[in-house]
Order: sequence, then structure tokens, then C-alpha cells
Amino acid sequence: MIHRKLPTSLQDLPSEHARLCLSIKRFLEENLSQNIQGTVIVGCSGGVDSMALALILHCLGIDVVFAHMDHQLRAESKDDANHVKSFAAALDRRCIISRVDISGLAIKYKKGIEETARQERYCFLEQVRKEYGAQWIATGHHLNDLSEDILLRLLRGTGWPGLAGMKAVDKKRYLLRPLLTTRRTLLVSFLSSQNISWVEDNSNKDITFKRNRIRHTILPLFEEENPKFSNVAHMLWSLAKEDEEFWDKMITDVFSKIEGSPEYFWIPRSELITLPKSLRLRVYIEAIRRLNIGQGRASTLFLLDNTLMKGERKKFFQFPGNVLVKLEQDKVIFTATIKNT
Amino acid sequence: MIHRKLPTSLQDLPSEHARLCLSIKRFLEENLSQNIQGTVIVGCSGGVDSMALALILHCLGIDVVFAHMDHQLRAESKDDANHVKSFAAALDRRCIISRVDISGLAIKYKKGIEETARQERYCFLEQVRKEYGAQWIATGHHLNDLSEDILLRLLRGTGWPGLAGMKAVDKKRYLLRPLLTTRRTLLVSFLSSQNISWVEDNSNKDITFKRNRIRHTILPLFEEENPKFSNVAHMLWSLAKEDEEFWDKMITDVFSKIEGSPEYFWIPRSELITLPKSLRLRVYIEAIRRLNIGQGRASTLFLLDNTLMKGERKKFFQFPGNVLVKLEQDKVIFTATIKNT
Repeated sequence: MIHRKLPTSLQDLPSEHARLCLSIKRFLEENLSQNIQGTVIVGCSGGVDSMALALILHCLGIDVVFAHMDHQLRAESKDDANHVKSFAAALDRRCIISRVDISGLAIKYKKGIEETARQERYCFLEQVRKEYGAQWIATGHHLNDLSEDILLRLLRGTGWPGLAGMKAVDKKRYLLRPLLTTRRTLLVSFLSSQNISWVEDNSNKDITFKRNRIRHTILPLFEEENPKFSNVAHMLWSLAKEDEEFWDKMITDVFSKIEGSPEYFWIPRSELITLPKSLRLRVYIEAIRRLNIGQGRASTLFLLDNTLMKGERKKFFQFPGNVLVKLEQDKVIFTATIKNT
Repeated sequence: MIHRKLPTSLQDLPSEHARLCLSIKRFLEENLSQNIQGTVIVGCSGGVDSMALALILHCLGIDVVFAHMDHQLRAESKDDANHVKSFAAALDRRCIISRVDISGLAIKYKKGIEETARQERYCFLEQVRKEYGAQWIATGHHLNDLSEDILLRLLRGTGWPGLAGMKAVDKKRYLLRPLLTTRRTLLVSFLSSQNISWVEDNSNKDITFKRNRIRHTILPLFEEENPKFSNVAHMLWSLAKEDEEFWDKMITDVFSKIEGSPEYFWIPRSELITLPKSLRLRVYIEAIRRLNIGQGRASTLFLLDNTLMKGERKKFFQFPGNVLVKLEQDKVIFTATIKNT
């Protein structure tokens, strides 16, 4: 990687790219309702998106720490790690590389390569975040990823507002996705104009992975039918963000009144039945989520609600992850049952 | 079409098909919150879905009137009309056939074949409904159509809850879609078991039509990735129905307080700014819809809202169909402007 002098602030950039950086800054402020302070860990694969992200944040004056996980899935993966390392060095930033045998772990955990890689990667990023006392981890997901994600979530049967894709800010996981509504082509032109090279991960083309089938088969068909499909994704995402905020507030109100413990809590029947059905359904989902990361089948949720509203008592509903919902005389009890292993 | 004696009531059907009819009855009752009374016009193309629909409603004791529009787009279209006619005759039901030169009208109106056909068909069905004093028109849309419709709406950029597909009951257009959550395969087995034949419209395979490209190209890819995708469609539709009811109520509350005339009305600024943003956005959409069948661009709606919330005044926003929104000192005015033709 041969660079001419790398930009270190907005003043070093041509105006169109300074504007790009400022639009990312504005996007973050809008979604965070605050300025970013201190160090940010950038999960950097060496691809165009995360390389551009690191440079944009750096130019915005943010203290970036690079974190790269070598998945050891491809012969050239060590080169990718070196690419990130030398870019970080050129910017005079710290860079943490972790080498993980994803194939081996996938076999050990009896999970897919994609899932194992994702889990290990986020686990590594969180370790780095803690180690460097950073508030946030930033990833390079951009608008094309968002379009893909919406299709993937539709396929999986995600309800609303989750259907409209990943969040820009995930406070629970300390995650930021500053580029989420930025097109990939802008990132390409940004790095190209600075003569900065990036690596292409060929496994992104491997259509044995579901996400890649969406990317290379289904998404192009959507874009053929509607060349502005990424605008649609952006619009849907914006609407969902407002709806999410709305429902979160309503759900929080309900949960502020629950009684019991984190593993055994209940909501009075009298409270539930006065709520609109669209809120009740979301309350069940949140209750189940609090007991287990899993999600209940929509059909069981509707059945539970019908049974409640008919006034039936002494009924049980079992959800994945050993979650049990009991309809009692005057309350609905949510509980994590003991595993029979 | 040679029939053995056609069934005329549930007693004439094998139990699985009687159950199918009863599930359709229940679906209608749940969505209508009332029983169907009097005559129902069935839009019948002669295809498996609308033929099955007519027979199911007939077996449920509903007075069915067949309405068939011959689009004159295919050489065999007259045979289709005759097929419907003889089926209606065999059931001793009335049948109204209309022959319309869709190609000619499409040229005349400078519109696409699909759009012209749809407009003319619904116009014809509404005429028949009025003529026969019927409360409802029923169409044969089924669960596979719903899956398709969701993909089509996603492509077009429909917001939520409209994204989750057509309604089972459209009171404004007097439309019922009794089969909307029923799989096509059930309809095929229902008619087959009664030795009732149907026509296949080959233009359904013509992928110059967008809907057919969705049906034959995109939807099969979704079903390959998730063989239970029609369950996803059904679940999403059920959730959207609740959300629609919820938002409709909230929107109606806001509109009960507006002042002005149907072409010029306003909402006090003080009223709007206290609403959650997700409701405000929907209020704008409804206001624009009341002035024009068109829909505003989402980006303009967001801009309008940002401008309002910043407290700016004396701003104008133009929407398609000559709809103008003005931010005034103490109110937001929605108005249909005079066309400059």
C-alpha cells in the first residue's frame, strides 16, 4: 500500500469528500442525540467500507483504534491483516489483530461458519472496546448492506419495526453503524480519490452463504425492477426508526408496572386487556425476549392473545428457550422454566 | 365442462372441504366483525381461485352473482367467459359478462395494459354491485397473491402497515378477499375433488408484466430460501392488520379536530407538535391522501416534519397531484391548488 500523505482532517479533503464526512457526522448526531467522545473501535476487515469508515472518523477528529479479526478462512487472510495494520500505522493509529480458527470453532460449536465468524468477531470487538475504555464500536455497514438486511429479515419473518433493518445505534451492544444510509459507491470514490487501496474478500461472492445469495441473486432483481430500491430501503428504515421509538416508549411504560423477578414476572390481566392489540403483541415479544434471546412463533403469540382476550384461565403457552407463559385468574405470568437436561 | 352434481351446501362436501369453507367463513367474520348478508358479487375470471371462491361462498349459503370481464387480450378469452357462464348456470346463479377492448383503451388512455385492465375490471364489478344491490364484491386473491403483493409493495416503497399487503376487507371499495390467507393448493384440491375444471390464463406467465416477474422469478427465490415464506407473509399481514387499526384510530382522533373544508383544511401547530413523530408522518400522509389519491415522497414528508419541528414558518411544500402544505404561524394548512392547465 503506497500512499501519498494521508488526510488527517476535513481540511485535507476535496470539498465533496469533506461534505461526505460531515454528513456522516450529522447522521451520528441525529441517531445518538449527542456528540461522540473519546476513542472509537473500528472493526476493520480491510474492505472498502470499513477502511473508508476508519478514515472518515479519523478526519472527523475521532480517536480511532483499528480492530481486525483474521478468520483464517482464506489463504490470503494474513495479507488482509497486514493491509489493515499498515493503514493504521500510516495514520499513526493503534491496531489490534486477532487470529481465530473459525473453521475449527464452527465444528466445535456445531454452528455454521457465518454464525461462528459473526459471534467471534463481535466478541473480539467487545474485548477491544473494554480494553481501550472506548464507548463505541463502529462497523462499516452501508446502505447496500441495509437493503440486503431488509430482504434477509423479510425472509426470516421479522415483524415490524425490526423488519426495516439493523439499527444505526445499538446501545446494548455499544455498536455504531455510521455509514448505514451511505451508498457504497461514495465510499469507493472516497478511498480511490485518496489513492488508498483495499482488499476484496472473495468469500463475499460465495453463494453457499445465504447473505451472499441475497446480495448476488435476489437484491439485483429488486434493483432491476426498481433502480431506486436503496432509496426505498432508506425510507423504510427511517420510518421504522420512528415507529421503534414510539413502541419502545409504550412497551417501557407497560414494563415499568410489572412485578416479580427477572426470571418470573407478571402483568395484571386488567392492565393487559386495556392495551391495543398491536401493543399487547409487542409486550409478549418483549417479555419473552427478557427471559431468553429467542423469539416466540407469531402464531403462538396470536393464540396466546386470543385466549387471553376470551377470558380463559389456567392455560399454558410454551415458547422456545424454555419460556413459559401462564394465564392465571388475574395475571399473565412469564417465566423461564428449568431446563431438563 | 362436465359435472357430476355440484355441491350446494356444506353437507354435500367431504369433511376436509367443509372445514375449508368454514375457515373461510370464520376469516370473513373476524375481518368484517359481522355476518355477510344478501348478495355478493364474485369477480370470476374462470381461474382456480375465483371459481373456488364462488363455490365456497355458494356452499356457505351466500347468494353469489358471477361477474366476468372478457379483456379480449387473448384468442381464447371468449372460451373463458363461456366457462364461467356454464359454471354459474350449473349452480343456477346469475352471471354477468362484460366484453371490453382493453388494448384499445390502454392506447386511448396512454396507460399500461395491466393498469387499464385492473381499472376497467373494478369499475365493471362496482357497476354490477350497484345494479344487483349487493353490499360486497369478492375476489379470489389468495395467500400466494399476498406473498407476491408484499414483494411488490416492498419494491414500490410502501410504508408500514401498507407494506404487508392488500386488505381482506376494503370498505371504501366494498371489496372482500375471503381467500387471502388460504393457500392456492387447497383451492386446487377443492375444485379437483369436485371434478370442476378451470381455465389457465397464459398471460399470467408473461413476464413482460411486473407482477408476473415477481411471481415467477423473485417469489420462487424467496421460497427456495425459506420454504415457509407464505407463513411469513401471513404473519406479517396479521401484525400489519393490528397496526393499521391502531394507527387508523390515532389518525381519526387527529382529523376529528381539523378545521376547514375538504379542499382546504388545517391542523393547529400546537396540536401537531405534541404528537409522536411516527403519528405526525402518518397524519401528513392521510392529509395528502384526502386531497389527492397520490402519495407524497417520503423524503419531502421528513423534510416537512423537520421544518415544522424547528419552528420555521412561512414555508411551502409541494406534493404530487397539486397538493400544497403551508407552514403558517400557528397552523399547518393542507390544500389542493388549482391546476395550471
